Amino acid sequence: MTDRRMLVVGAHSADFVWRAAGAIAKHTLAGGEARVISLSYGERGESGELWKVPDQTVENVKRHRHDEASKAAAAVGASFDSLDLGDYPLEVDNDAVNELAEIMRDFKPHVVLTHCDKDPFNPDHPVAYTAVAKARLLTAGAVVEAGFRTAPPSEFLVFEPHQPELCGFVPSVFVDITGVFEQKKKAMSAMAAQSYLQQYYAERAEHRGNHARKVTGNKEIRQAEAFMRVVPNVVGAL
Amino acid sequence: MTDRRMLVVGAHSADFVWRAAGAIAKHTLAGGEARVISLSYGERGESGELWKVPDQTVENVKRHRHDEASKAAAAVGASFDSLDLGDYPLEVDNDAVNELAEIMRDFKPHVVLTHCDKDPFNPDHPVAYTAVAKARLLTAGAVVEAGFRTAPPSEFLVFEPHQPELCGFVPSVFVDITGVFEQKKKAMSAMAAQSYLQQYYAERAEHRGNHARKVTGNKEIRQAEAFMRVVPNVVGAL
Amino acid sequence: MTDRRMLVVGAHSADFVWRAAGAIAKHTLAGGEARVISLSYGERGESGELWKVPDQTVENVKRHRHDEASKAAAAVGASFDSLDLGDYPLEVDNDAVNELAEIMRDFKPHVVLTHCDKDPFNPDHPVAYTAVAKARLLTAGAVVEAGFRTAPPSEFLVFEPHQPELCGFVPSVFVDITGVFEQKKKAMSAMAAQSYLQQYYAERAEHRGNHARKVTGNKEIRQAEAFMRVVPNVVGAL
Amino acid sequence: MTDRRMLVVGAHSADFVWRAAGAIAKHTLAGGEARVISLSYGERGESGELWKVPDQTVENVKRHRHDEASKAAAAVGASFDSLDLGDYPLEVDNDAVNELAEIMRDFKPHVVLTHCDKDPFNPDHPVAYTAVAKARLLTAGAVVEAGFRTAPPSEFLVFEPHQPELCGFVPSVFVDITGVFEQKKKAMSAMAAQSYLQQYYAERAEHRGNHARKVTGNKEIRQAEAFMRVVPNVVGAL
Amino acid sequence: MTDRRMLVVGAHSADFVWRAAGAIAKHTLAGGEARVISLSYGERGESGELWKVPDQTVENVKRHRHDEASKAAAAVGASFDSLDLGDYPLEVDNDAVNELAEIMRDFKPHVVLTHCDKDPFNPDHPVAYTAVAKARLLTAGAVVEAGFRTAPPSEFLVFEPHQPELCGFVPSVFVDITGVFEQKKKAMSAMAAQSYLQQYYAERAEHRGNHARKVTGNKEIRQAEAFMRVVPNVVGAL
Amino acid sequence: MTDRRMLVVGAHSADFVWRAAGAIAKHTLAGGEARVISLSYGERGESGELWKVPDQTVENVKRHRHDEASKAAAAVGASFDSLDLGDYPLEVDNDAVNELAEIMRDFKPHVVLTHCDKDPFNPDHPVAYTAVAKARLLTAGAVVEAGFRTAPPSEFLVFEPHQPELCGFVPSVFVDITGVFEQKKKAMSAMAAQSYLQQYYAERAEHRGNHARKVTGNKEIRQAEAFMRVVPNVVGAL
Repeated sequence: MTDRRMLVVGAHSADFVWRAAGAIAKHTLAGGEARVISLSYGERGESGELWKVPDQTVENVKRHRHDEASKAAAAVGASFDSLDLGDYPLEVDNDAVNELAEIMRDFKPHVVLTHCDKDPFNPDHPVAYTAVAKARLLTAGAVVEAGFRTAPPSEFLVFEPHQPELCGFVPSVFVDITGVFEQKKKAMSAMAAQSYLQQYYAERAEHRGNHARKVTGNKEIRQAEAFMRVVPNVVGAL
Repeated sequence: MTDRRMLVVGAHSADFVWRAAGAIAKHTLAGGEARVISLSYGERGESGELWKVPDQTVENVKRHRHDEASKAAAAVGASFDSLDLGDYPLEVDNDAVNELAEIMRDFKPHVVLTHCDKDPFNPDHPVAYTAVAKARLLTAGAVVEAGFRTAPPSEFLVFEPHQPELCGFVPSVFVDITGVFEQKKKAMSAMAAQSYLQQYYAERAEHRGNHARKVTGNKEIRQAEAFMRVVPNVVGAL
Repeated sequence: MTDRRMLVVGAHSADFVWRAAGAIAKHTLAGGEARVISLSYGERGESGELWKVPDQTVENVKRHRHDEASKAAAAVGASFDSLDLGDYPLEVDNDAVNELAEIMRDFKPHVVLTHCDKDPFNPDHPVAYTAVAKARLLTAGAVVEAGFRTAPPSEFLVFEPHQPELCGFVPSVFVDITGVFEQKKKAMSAMAAQSYLQQYYAERAEHRGNHARKVTGNKEIRQAEAFMRVVPNVVGAL
Repeated sequence: MTDRRMLVVGAHSADFVWRAAGAIAKHTLAGGEARVISLSYGERGESGELWKVPDQTVENVKRHRHDEASKAAAAVGASFDSLDLGDYPLEVDNDAVNELAEIMRDFKPHVVLTHCDKDPFNPDHPVAYTAVAKARLLTAGAVVEAGFRTAPPSEFLVFEPHQPELCGFVPSVFVDITGVFEQKKKAMSAMAAQSYLQQYYAERAEHRGNHARKVTGNKEIRQAEAFMRVVPNVVGAL
Repeated sequence: MTDRRMLVVGAHSADFVWRAAGAIAKHTLAGGEARVISLSYGERGESGELWKVPDQTVENVKRHRHDEASKAAAAVGASFDSLDLGDYPLEVDNDAVNELAEIMRDFKPHVVLTHCDKDPFNPDHPVAYTAVAKARLLTAGAVVEAGFRTAPPSEFLVFEPHQPELCGFVPSVFVDITGVFEQKKKAMSAMAAQSYLQQYYAERAEHRGNHARKVTGNKEIRQAEAFMRVVPNVVGAL
Repeated sequence: MTDRRMLVVGAHSADFVWRAAGAIAKHTLAGGEARVISLSYGERGESGELWKVPDQTVENVKRHRHDEASKAAAAVGASFDSLDLGDYPLEVDNDAVNELAEIMRDFKPHVVLTHCDKDPFNPDHPVAYTAVAKARLLTAGAVVEAGFRTAPPSEFLVFEPHQPELCGFVPSVFVDITGVFEQKKKAMSAMAAQSYLQQYYAERAEHRGNHARKVTGNKEIRQAEAFMRVVPNVVGAL
């Protein structure tokens, strides 16, 4: 696992926390490197609490969201950056896709995580998927040698959305996050304004832990996160 | 990988060869144990060549098929047994399901491979799936403690059918069989009467190798086999 | 088209009329031969009107249904037989499947039509599908030579159910029945007790005609029937 | 709502509690009548705790399960009966289907709830679905008058399985159970041996409540249950 | 039902008539308010008859289509407006999405109806779906408080396309339009140039009425319209 | 078949060769006319070998690719043109869609072939699908007479992608290319830099030939190509 690199791309700055903080922590615990990129700060659609503060400004909201996300990323051993493209709606033009592609070419991730491609409850999540999928393909080249700078192909998975069945999300793999659950809770607690989501996703991790126990019979597993693979992975043996 | 146990169940005695011989060889090469069980010998539906021999008998056809399959299994380090339930149509009654379940309780496989649940070209493959899935659940028990002898839950995957798209087969994982491809070819060559299938599945392994290279960028991969997971697996990190 | 043989299998004696009478008529008009087999007479589930007659008997109901279906089949140039297996529920045991398989081996159909494999409004239609699919595979043999009497593989299509979207039915092909629509109406009128279905399916044929015009731009098409292919067909050119 | 009748059929005696107790309570609170039928007691697959008691007998396990389920049903205003068909595996033969059909003809339910048709973690749940679906169709008759005793067609929904995405479960409707959540908790507490499931499904109800709030914007909703309709319902207006 | 508000968005000015006029009439009959918005007049793709008039102008075609649609809307108690964005192809840029979103924020619909998201026969219908879905999400905000003006979430359904199975349309709910069928016919007759569609959709309403009778056993239902829910609804009891 | 016209649109100049050269050859052999249009030359993503030449220029790469594709098209009796829109990423704006639509209005194809709508391994293939589907609908008009120049509707099929199961590709029809396989090989050999793909797709044609034999029982078939219909076709008889 040492030297593996993970890239996590969220539409808004808090997305990675609820959906993948445990998998990030396990990755970095194993000696891997993890980068979180958010395409926007979620400053319009997911920062209502902050806007209740008198004389609030968009710069301040973004700064606040940046600090929270940086703290959460640090709690699981990852770096955090935002492309600050705006939200509700998030728009990712060709330049931004190219910026993502350049990040991929430089970072050469072994695994890429993002939102799934459908979400009837969020206008920005599918936009993020489309941008990440496109950037990833632009860096990977075709089956023949490409005439531009590429990165090795990466494993590509989507993390669990808020209402999975309605987003076409079917788990392909559970990551056992039992050993890093305290880190995930710490990352979640950095999102001070959304305490009810902290409870929701802590319970959700317990439920996925139940599912992972059921699948394996391994009673040591207490918490897990679910992911869906977009492309198959390759293994040496089953 | 050492000490892992793999159970491979085919409807007919030759099924495992074309579809999973490489994965079996990689499993045993890694120190694992592999058992192949065929529910029938395919003595009616897949032994036409043998029936061209004058004065052929069903006992002789079965013996021939048993020898071929045993030789093929040995080539990839596995044992071979048949429940000899008859084919075209294969029928698996409750007793046979219980026999399968008992095998699972005794062998305690970590991974189970069989046919997929739909095949518009074969009447017996879906019957095999249904029987294996049922036997596996009967040994696993429910989420609460069961009142009977159980085995730990196993990973459960289906191997590639002959016309995958029409069987609803979508690969979730490729097994790199480059290092054991000669063994797979040897196993296939034990099926003397079906030489054209030997070529077909050798080429298919090359094609899946191409797909696995495309997914990973790893040019060392030359041959692969494709499998679809029925239930998610659990990993420690991505 | 001359010398082509079509086998149409319905769960109940009237099914073929509403769903495939036009395609049968086009087939026989082109010089082909058509046989209709019904697995039951629908004497329990679809003969309520007849049961209102005082002192009605099941033998009489079946005879009545046999006569109606024979007349309807004749109107489109087909023969009619029933296996008389009973309905609501229809049960097709191994002997009955073998009887169907023997019919296929004797008749050697080029095309087989039956119900689709799912119907949340009818308990017998999916049973018919399963039986026909199984019998067809038992006659076709596997990719290698089979050790029993076979028939050449047939095209295999399902006809339109009453509520198509809820049965997973998606049309793959429309048959233009404009030239034989009067024959279909005559066949339908043989089903005297179900006059409202005569109107329903006459209108439905007009609607499918509208769809077929839309697909081709051919304004000569007035009525059509829709079918879904279970397995691909093979053509010499597109 | 007064005078509406709800029939809930579970494979095992405890199934209705976790998955539909809230919807039952809302139904009876509104003046409706509710009957719970379990096809088995889950005496083998879901009673492991009871089997740890020395000298345990199957009769005693069943009696214990009957008492628990009766108490739970009473907590939400429903009656409870079991067909006692055995579990792991549950087998529902024609006689048992007819018994279910007779219950439906007598009770004339407006709404029927059961398991969904696929569950890679349980061998009995899909068997229950198939039996209920068949019994329901045998009582409903076809689109034409049937020659046997029928009941009016019922709304038909499946309740949420333990790992919904892997069972093909997609919610079509949420039932707001906020006002009866204490009753559901009381029903769950009757299942003394499965305290961890009590917590799991209490949290799950909160999560579905979150989803139902999100769908409606109605902040009064605290807990909900999810159901998937097998057939459309009919309304007077949207 | 009183005080409920319904928003119906069509790609072209006549779409709502064929697909939802009955549901609109039932809504307004029950005391609700209904607004129809068409994104274009269908002046290019669906006004061929008008273009046969010598010296026809696009302004005149649009005026004609506006008058027809207004008359049809009035027949079912609704208002009509068009955003006049052009058709074949319809393009909905961000400004137009925002205009739709503003309409939603002002009107605060309880239920939104539009086209489904796929249509292999029409280039504009999926564009309309995408625009409506996006506008709706931009007004609803995320699960946390949004930093902008929102409207309460609405029920979201798509109406029946012309060839439903090929558009992925599966009915979730039938609206009984028996009591307002004359109004729907009047609305359809306002579309003078498309008399054959008047017959087609009158028959289609009868067919959906047949389906709704089959689902409920309620013989009073004569005509119905079918809709598919994009997100679940919430009910107090089943 | 005489006088039928086929339009094949690829994202890159070599796409048609691997996926449809046989079907094109059969079409022209039968007296039909075939045009190949590539939206780009694949000069960035699929020309890596050419870029290894010192002092290579994009003009030269395109010229080289144009010559190769022209030679390949000639080998199967088709013409070749490119819209030269650029690749990795391919972008098809409204003007380019209109150019495609004009080509369709002029050429009036009876059958249109292109990529399928999903490909997790290629950023440009789905873009090509979307553009072709849109252009086709813009030329076809709606169910009513359109106010602009149209062409008759065409059969619409997608050809086989490199990893079919992961692209949602399910064959609806196999074209027997046995008689023109040498032509396809000649067309493939024009793609000098991609010799391993020549072998891959020659073997793939043999495999599809095996599938087509299995479907028909016709042992004369040696090679085939697979296509998926986007809309049903219409036939005179089955």
